Amino acid sequence: MDTPAGHDGSSLTAAAHAERQPASAGAPRVVVAGATGFAGALAADLLWRHPGFELVAVTGRSEVGRRLCDVYPRYRVPLALAELDVPSLAGIDAAIVAYPHGAAAPTVGAFRDLGARVIDLSADFRLGSLATYEKWYGTHPRPDLLDQAVYGLTELHRERIAAATIVANPGCYPTAALLGLSPLARAGLIADVVIDAKQGISGAGRTYDDTTHLSAAGENILPYKVAAHRHTPEIEEQLARLGADLRVQFQAHLVPLDQGELASCYVTPTRAVAQAELDELFAAAYAQEPFVEVASVPPGTRDVMATNLCRVFAASDSHTGKLVLLAAIDNLWKGTSSQAIQNLNLMFGQPEAAGLS
Amino acid sequence: MDTPAGHDGSSLTAAAHAERQPASAGAPRVVVAGATGFAGALAADLLWRHPGFELVAVTGRSEVGRRLCDVYPRYRVPLALAELDVPSLAGIDAAIVAYPHGAAAPTVGAFRDLGARVIDLSADFRLGSLATYEKWYGTHPRPDLLDQAVYGLTELHRERIAAATIVANPGCYPTAALLGLSPLARAGLIADVVIDAKQGISGAGRTYDDTTHLSAAGENILPYKVAAHRHTPEIEEQLARLGADLRVQFQAHLVPLDQGELASCYVTPTRAVAQAELDELFAAAYAQEPFVEVASVPPGTRDVMATNLCRVFAASDSHTGKLVLLAAIDNLWKGTSSQAIQNLNLMFGQPEAAGLS
Amino acid sequence: MDTPAGHDGSSLTAAAHAERQPASAGAPRVVVAGATGFAGALAADLLWRHPGFELVAVTGRSEVGRRLCDVYPRYRVPLALAELDVPSLAGIDAAIVAYPHGAAAPTVGAFRDLGARVIDLSADFRLGSLATYEKWYGTHPRPDLLDQAVYGLTELHRERIAAATIVANPGCYPTAALLGLSPLARAGLIADVVIDAKQGISGAGRTYDDTTHLSAAGENILPYKVAAHRHTPEIEEQLARLGADLRVQFQAHLVPLDQGELASCYVTPTRAVAQAELDELFAAAYAQEPFVEVASVPPGTRDVMATNLCRVFAASDSHTGKLVLLAAIDNLWKGTSSQAIQNLNLMFGQPEAAGLS
Amino acid sequence: MDTPAGHDGSSLTAAAHAERQPASAGAPRVVVAGATGFAGALAADLLWRHPGFELVAVTGRSEVGRRLCDVYPRYRVPLALAELDVPSLAGIDAAIVAYPHGAAAPTVGAFRDLGARVIDLSADFRLGSLATYEKWYGTHPRPDLLDQAVYGLTELHRERIAAATIVANPGCYPTAALLGLSPLARAGLIADVVIDAKQGISGAGRTYDDTTHLSAAGENILPYKVAAHRHTPEIEEQLARLGADLRVQFQAHLVPLDQGELASCYVTPTRAVAQAELDELFAAAYAQEPFVEVASVPPGTRDVMATNLCRVFAASDSHTGKLVLLAAIDNLWKGTSSQAIQNLNLMFGQPEAAGLS
Repeated sequence: MDTPAGHDGSSLTAAAHAERQPASAGAPRVVVAGATGFAGALAADLLWRHPGFELVAVTGRSEVGRRLCDVYPRYRVPLALAELDVPSLAGIDAAIVAYPHGAAAPTVGAFRDLGARVIDLSADFRLGSLATYEKWYGTHPRPDLLDQAVYGLTELHRERIAAATIVANPGCYPTAALLGLSPLARAGLIADVVIDAKQGISGAGRTYDDTTHLSAAGENILPYKVAAHRHTPEIEEQLARLGADLRVQFQAHLVPLDQGELASCYVTPTRAVAQAELDELFAAAYAQEPFVEVASVPPGTRDVMATNLCRVFAASDSHTGKLVLLAAIDNLWKGTSSQAIQNLNLMFGQPEAAGLS
Repeated sequence: MDTPAGHDGSSLTAAAHAERQPASAGAPRVVVAGATGFAGALAADLLWRHPGFELVAVTGRSEVGRRLCDVYPRYRVPLALAELDVPSLAGIDAAIVAYPHGAAAPTVGAFRDLGARVIDLSADFRLGSLATYEKWYGTHPRPDLLDQAVYGLTELHRERIAAATIVANPGCYPTAALLGLSPLARAGLIADVVIDAKQGISGAGRTYDDTTHLSAAGENILPYKVAAHRHTPEIEEQLARLGADLRVQFQAHLVPLDQGELASCYVTPTRAVAQAELDELFAAAYAQEPFVEVASVPPGTRDVMATNLCRVFAASDSHTGKLVLLAAIDNLWKGTSSQAIQNLNLMFGQPEAAGLS
Repeated sequence: MDTPAGHDGSSLTAAAHAERQPASAGAPRVVVAGATGFAGALAADLLWRHPGFELVAVTGRSEVGRRLCDVYPRYRVPLALAELDVPSLAGIDAAIVAYPHGAAAPTVGAFRDLGARVIDLSADFRLGSLATYEKWYGTHPRPDLLDQAVYGLTELHRERIAAATIVANPGCYPTAALLGLSPLARAGLIADVVIDAKQGISGAGRTYDDTTHLSAAGENILPYKVAAHRHTPEIEEQLARLGADLRVQFQAHLVPLDQGELASCYVTPTRAVAQAELDELFAAAYAQEPFVEVASVPPGTRDVMATNLCRVFAASDSHTGKLVLLAAIDNLWKGTSSQAIQNLNLMFGQPEAAGLS
Repeated sequence: MDTPAGHDGSSLTAAAHAERQPASAGAPRVVVAGATGFAGALAADLLWRHPGFELVAVTGRSEVGRRLCDVYPRYRVPLALAELDVPSLAGIDAAIVAYPHGAAAPTVGAFRDLGARVIDLSADFRLGSLATYEKWYGTHPRPDLLDQAVYGLTELHRERIAAATIVANPGCYPTAALLGLSPLARAGLIADVVIDAKQGISGAGRTYDDTTHLSAAGENILPYKVAAHRHTPEIEEQLARLGADLRVQFQAHLVPLDQGELASCYVTPTRAVAQAELDELFAAAYAQEPFVEVASVPPGTRDVMATNLCRVFAASDSHTGKLVLLAAIDNLWKGTSSQAIQNLNLMFGQPEAAGLS
């Protein structure tokens, strides 16, 4: 055996700036806080290439001084990572906060104090119920801000997101599950549901351990957090708002790929639902959605890799009477960072698909 | 792009025979019919290294004349593949038939006519109900033999398998699902069940298409055969025999690894079941089973790769009242070929674990 | 085991057209012949999203009538595949021909007869020497056209490509190797060279066999075509044109990923070359190249995945006196299809990077 | 995104002991020091299942108190990891030391002081030249023991290994390279050589960083330690002992698989060598070797996965006059841990293949 030196990324002689589409003059100025993680880094890359925003800073404690394009060679962002110093960022228009749960809220608050609009990628502002939050995550650092936050699943809350000062970007599992289930929830058709979700290893984040090492994650299918997943209340709260007040059975699994997520949802309906009715329901729900496609064959996650798309498939099982909903996304894109950009577009009056195709 | 020449396997100067543990004199003589497929090839390899059986022939139409160790370089079986000619095999004691569904039954019958005992890896003799078989697979070629067949899930039918002339080796999905569910079925605890199964690409067999090419299967999670899977009746029949007469919701997915399978089963119980009761139930069910382990943490399929083991994990979800059963196997080993050897051991009075550890 | 039904791709209710950036009026009209293969499909996808070309037809015998977005769900091209019927395509401005070696030349000729300019992805027009071609590929179907063809490694022949009627797009191995070696060849520094190339499975194309099945290609490193690779003469011819007339040792390997290629080149120099001189040589060679980056750390292929970039790294080994040149590309992008678009841009006066970032 | 809890392995109700083949009474008693790493853990697993040795203890600082089968669920070793306390191990017959370079030597010395025979998996005793060692690794902690150490490439030093008190187990790269090159070195045929080695991620060890995370290592080909690899002197020393005193060009690469390694060696011969001569040379060299197979087609690493085998392939390239030697091993097995067992077998008079097939 032999330990390779760390892969320190690439200092490029070619000017990475050259690849950037110039942001138009007067474009909103955006900061990504926590750009060393997978989610923040992708958000920064998307903003860097975005014609309608100016990425003015990226922060991240663990790699201060290194350029983002050296930490993540496949992203072309030549900005150097800085320690977060919120006051020095006065004048920015927006911030994307990619911090861990609990750590995010104070930073969100600091940006709000500057007057910036914020998209928070953590769970800190996703739950309407403070009690539920504190059950899963401990004391909330900024409960005073909960009222400002809008849940950022674009397809469910487009108008409110456009006007929000804080957008709580959804978890990737809730994103897929809710895009699969919301048409049924709105129609009052869900009596019971089991959600079996599978995700690539990027979903574990830039965490180095026995779940992410290729020699452990490769050739493996690994269920985790059985009967105790923190995404359950987020899904239940959103379904309840749509009229489906029930407890959901949710189970997550890691499978050996990088980016990709499939939520397989098994619904016991409140009444018999024929395939034709199901087809109509989904066609109607998503006919106008630019980033949700109703597929006629079961969707593979590869089909939506590195896109903001969600592909959903709905089947009525005549043998059991149950409904099977399959929703495929890229967990890092629509599940996290590109959905954040989709929301940012809405918040600043840009075309919803700007910078995402 | 550039197309490599086919990888034709390896003719070895080192005598592959040398690696073989010599079968004892008078060991039962066994044939593997259909050894060019993944399942038959592994069965042949296990028999070749088995101290208690003599592998006398391997057959396979598509590779006649090539040695099995050249077709599958990682298996060390130097026998050349022959066209199947059943009469020429008079005197053999047993055959493992690894043919596609429908094609298997006539071959099974031919071996039975020779007096050999047969393990059939196909679905042809798995279902007790001829009507159910014909609904899914068409006309049965040898319905007269159905009475002789015993369903070969070792842990459920050990005694009958030992005495059987035809063993219908289970499908890999039913193997995992039934090992996860049978303790509950016997205890009358299953009111409803959803089975979400994930499997590596070896499960698709030596089939070359868009589901097996690494450039399609890699970085993908692919659900298939939605609301219409042929393994459902096999699972339902076995559960019914255990006292759980219900319709199961079953969904299969391909994930990017070679060998490994996880069945995630979500049971709505007939009454509340506490974790302690569940633990006792599974401990009791599998305490004496050499190849089923009750795990205290969620099992990954990597943990059982290339073994005859099944690891099961049972959790009672206090939030929903449902039970979560996770069963991990190697789809090619316990799911197919090593279970066949386990059964063959029983049929010929060998230690159940012979040749499997 | 259980064979999934073929994954037939996805008919989308969402109008895939909506995603397309509209080609400007009067944009050159382009056909992709052979769009069912990996190379042709990606070329079609790049053209579909290209602001400066209009993709008017995609052809492919094996999937006639299916939309390209159903055959390749991750590409959003809704055009249906047609049988190639060259006369019916009169009026087109250009064709990309993605046919196998030998089959390509007649089709290239037919398009030339229409007056279209052609980029040929096969080897048919890559070699200047007819004798060398016929040694490796048999009788050339259209030797009369050889004079028109320009070798399409953009960085070597930019001006001639811009004026060419036939561009012979390079093989992916020569692309990486020549970008690594050409600065040395021009400087007269190569006395001897060994090229060890590694490539993902997409390099084997949409071929279904024991080299591409995930259960054979996964967890494998497979050398192929030892001491007899058809890319050798292509590399040697180009090096000779740069002044390095020598025989190259070339060896290819398949490794378990989808898209990615690394050429590791070991040069015995004609004289001692210090690191500083090497750095200057490469900096000068590529300072103005938009798609070649001189890296300061060894490049991984992941860094250039799904881009038209080549990252090169040059080291002088003081222990041996040899030079180590590493060149990383995406074999399907810069190695094949995106380089074809780069060339097409040049041929039609578009910005070289149009449609590629 | 969502961080899974660490996968803590599996406490099994089934008695893992049951699977073990009982070591015969009076079997040599062996300790594995450093069993938390990949190499030590596999060595422990092989010993646990070995009929001729008794594994009496496993040590490892980072997981004290946990059973090895919980840290590595796929290994069935139920011994709990302990802090290393050499004096308490008096009476053992042998130790396998799986410590990092530099840390190993003092522990090797402590075991020698007990009178135990030692196999060291580190580089500490591989080099005959102290000066060379100290150039690459710093001050040697126990230079007094260097005289006792025998280089443990079994096929080169079988007799001396059998009698040794300290065996310096080779690096995995030197193992493959030397098995490919030694027949040529002995025959005086190597004028110059380039070794291009590729290895799976297990070769980086249980190290958690950007080279091992599946989201960085997957879909990547990564060269590392360019023009400065510490395995070079080990290879050069051994080649020199065989008569080939030269400087070798060595380059390592990581590719996305778990276990597997290929050394591709390109030799400029001292005189022309025809294929027939090469074939005879290799056939003669390895005819009696139980674990080296001369293949007639290029070997894939998958063919030798989880075995102690090396497959070598030798070709004379008539175009260049060079010789191409390909050697495939499993880096963790023949490259490290199973070769250690092969050596231990020799040292204690066991059949060389005991516990390895």
